Amino acid sequence: MRQNLHATYLIRSPAEAISARAQALALEQSVEMPLAALTDARVKRDVVAQIESISERSSGVHAVRLALARETVGDDAGQLMNMLFGNSSLLPDIQLEDIDLPVDAAKRFGGPALGIAGIRALVRVAGRALTCTALKPIGSSVAQVSRLAALFADAGIDVIKEDHGWAESDLAPFHVRVPACQRAIAATNRGKGEREPLSQYAPSLSGDLDQMRSQLRCALDCGVTMALAAPMIMGCAGFQTLRREFPQVALLAHPAFAGTQIAPGALLGKLFRLFGADAVIFPNHGGRFAFPRDVCAAIAAGNRAPWLGLKPSLPTPAGGMSVERSAEIISEYGRDVMLLIGGSLLIARDQLAQRSRAFVADVARASDAVTA
Amino acid sequence: MRQNLHATYLIRSPAEAISARAQALALEQSVEMPLAALTDARVKRDVVAQIESISERSSGVHAVRLALARETVGDDAGQLMNMLFGNSSLLPDIQLEDIDLPVDAAKRFGGPALGIAGIRALVRVAGRALTCTALKPIGSSVAQVSRLAALFADAGIDVIKEDHGWAESDLAPFHVRVPACQRAIAATNRGKGEREPLSQYAPSLSGDLDQMRSQLRCALDCGVTMALAAPMIMGCAGFQTLRREFPQVALLAHPAFAGTQIAPGALLGKLFRLFGADAVIFPNHGGRFAFPRDVCAAIAAGNRAPWLGLKPSLPTPAGGMSVERSAEIISEYGRDVMLLIGGSLLIARDQLAQRSRAFVADVARASDAVTA
Repeated sequence: MRQNLHATYLIRSPAEAISARAQALALEQSVEMPLAALTDARVKRDVVAQIESISERSSGVHAVRLALARETVGDDAGQLMNMLFGNSSLLPDIQLEDIDLPVDAAKRFGGPALGIAGIRALVRVAGRALTCTALKPIGSSVAQVSRLAALFADAGIDVIKEDHGWAESDLAPFHVRVPACQRAIAATNRGKGEREPLSQYAPSLSGDLDQMRSQLRCALDCGVTMALAAPMIMGCAGFQTLRREFPQVALLAHPAFAGTQIAPGALLGKLFRLFGADAVIFPNHGGRFAFPRDVCAAIAAGNRAPWLGLKPSLPTPAGGMSVERSAEIISEYGRDVMLLIGGSLLIARDQLAQRSRAFVADVARASDAVTA
Repeated sequence: MRQNLHATYLIRSPAEAISARAQALALEQSVEMPLAALTDARVKRDVVAQIESISERSSGVHAVRLALARETVGDDAGQLMNMLFGNSSLLPDIQLEDIDLPVDAAKRFGGPALGIAGIRALVRVAGRALTCTALKPIGSSVAQVSRLAALFADAGIDVIKEDHGWAESDLAPFHVRVPACQRAIAATNRGKGEREPLSQYAPSLSGDLDQMRSQLRCALDCGVTMALAAPMIMGCAGFQTLRREFPQVALLAHPAFAGTQIAPGALLGKLFRLFGADAVIFPNHGGRFAFPRDVCAAIAAGNRAPWLGLKPSLPTPAGGMSVERSAEIISEYGRDVMLLIGGSLLIARDQLAQRSRAFVADVARASDAVTA
């Protein structure tokens, strides 16, 4: 009995050609050969992608929904990306707009291990929006970066992540840098009251799967609870493997290299969640990047809406946000959001501690002002 | 002493804004913070990306060449992708056009292990263009696919690769499918004369790095000499790890998911070669995909031109090529090319063996007709 995953694509095409384009897409994303060359009845019935619907979305743009045979994907995240959009990513006029899959297939992929509730438990923050900042710049010494980590923890920032540009370097190798930053943050946390929020540290993983595993083990050994990784750089299969092997770690997905023809609402909103991201960082509108407001809303909705029994991911708008926009961001996304502000804190230089505290206070105040 | 890698980007921007855009790009792809927030003199001098040149390429499009600090990258292919284009991939108006790096940095990445000469040695073909076809469709049984492999080997096709959609499946798991296909091809090879070309088999790797390693070991154990993998799906760091751990295997890089804002001449032409692809499959002009002729020429040039002491990769035009175009393709690319033709053979159905032989004969003839 054939089981399907579902993918909706937007194709720019004249109306008279869309039926042939849809059929070509169905073949491209499954058997990769002309139907006339296909001799096997089982493959035709059970393996070739099927067109479920074609509808005009706007002038010259058609939505084509395909049923992809689940047997071609299994529970391999890399293979899912391959079958959804491997070859079609090379075409200029097709976007993968949305995906859907059966509940039991989603369960096999697994989704977030901690989700929003798990992250809230780690930072001991129940109701309000969370704060996040980044350890910058890469190239700093271990002493510099751990001092910065202590400052942010002391200011009460919930999640102190590393820039995604941190990798193994002679000056600050992971196994030296990460224990030092974790010690600095933990020392500050020890001074906090029993019910006060705790700062958590999310170091950046780099290299191949083995290197990331060894970095994660090193981090866990010194008490780290979170980590940052970029699924589109490391490969989604590897990201999912980390998820499965380290269910105790909150994984923050970074959007580096996520500029594809997959709609951000599907890629950052749903696929990263499916593969296990507990939080998803995305470039918010009005910052250094160009995602419009409705695209950002689609990402947050994909992260948080009830979906296939998976835990929700914490949407983390970023990319040139300023302290001054905290209230606006929270009023837009509500309280289940994490505000990531980096440069806009560091620009304060000598006043960094004060500005970090102001960020924390603004987020608390703005959270009180919205209905959850 | 600062050492640099070099990246050239094309930015759509009014002339009066390009200087600020270039500066923003240099920060985005290095320290990811405003220059005004940067206090450390060493980081400013040694780590921040530097603008080497800005020039107008065409109306409203400017080429910006940056010097990226080598210390931020090391020899990690994933980190190179990250620092070249991680965040900027999220911007709609920037393309990474070209890369350059010092010879000793290239040596550390490593490049192809076998290169064109190594592949030629495996298939015992010195002078002419090579032939390649694909085992299709996914969803076939092991018996079906190994019969097909034998037929192609018997017809004298040099490289018989699997479709990149083959993954682990209940019906044809790697450890059953690959030994069966390899046995079929090896048996046919044993009937060939001492100086006749030998068919080689390139199974498709899937899953995370561990699974791919275990698949490769299984393949090597039964005599396989080549394998297919998609760097943009598995992650470039993992691809490079396979390259380093399996220097005896010819790695064919598949372009699945390579539809990014990196110019194909840089990504498929140079980066895949840098990371160790012995052959690079790309969608040729005039087929099912849309790369224009000059882009395809840039890929082939990137694969084969003398570059940093790296072995050349074998350009492998594909994506809806037909037997009838063999002569044209060889006259365009010369003899150091591998023609990958799949569906256009299988469409012959009952005449598949004849059509495969015709393909082999056409390629031999067309190769004789060009000066090398």
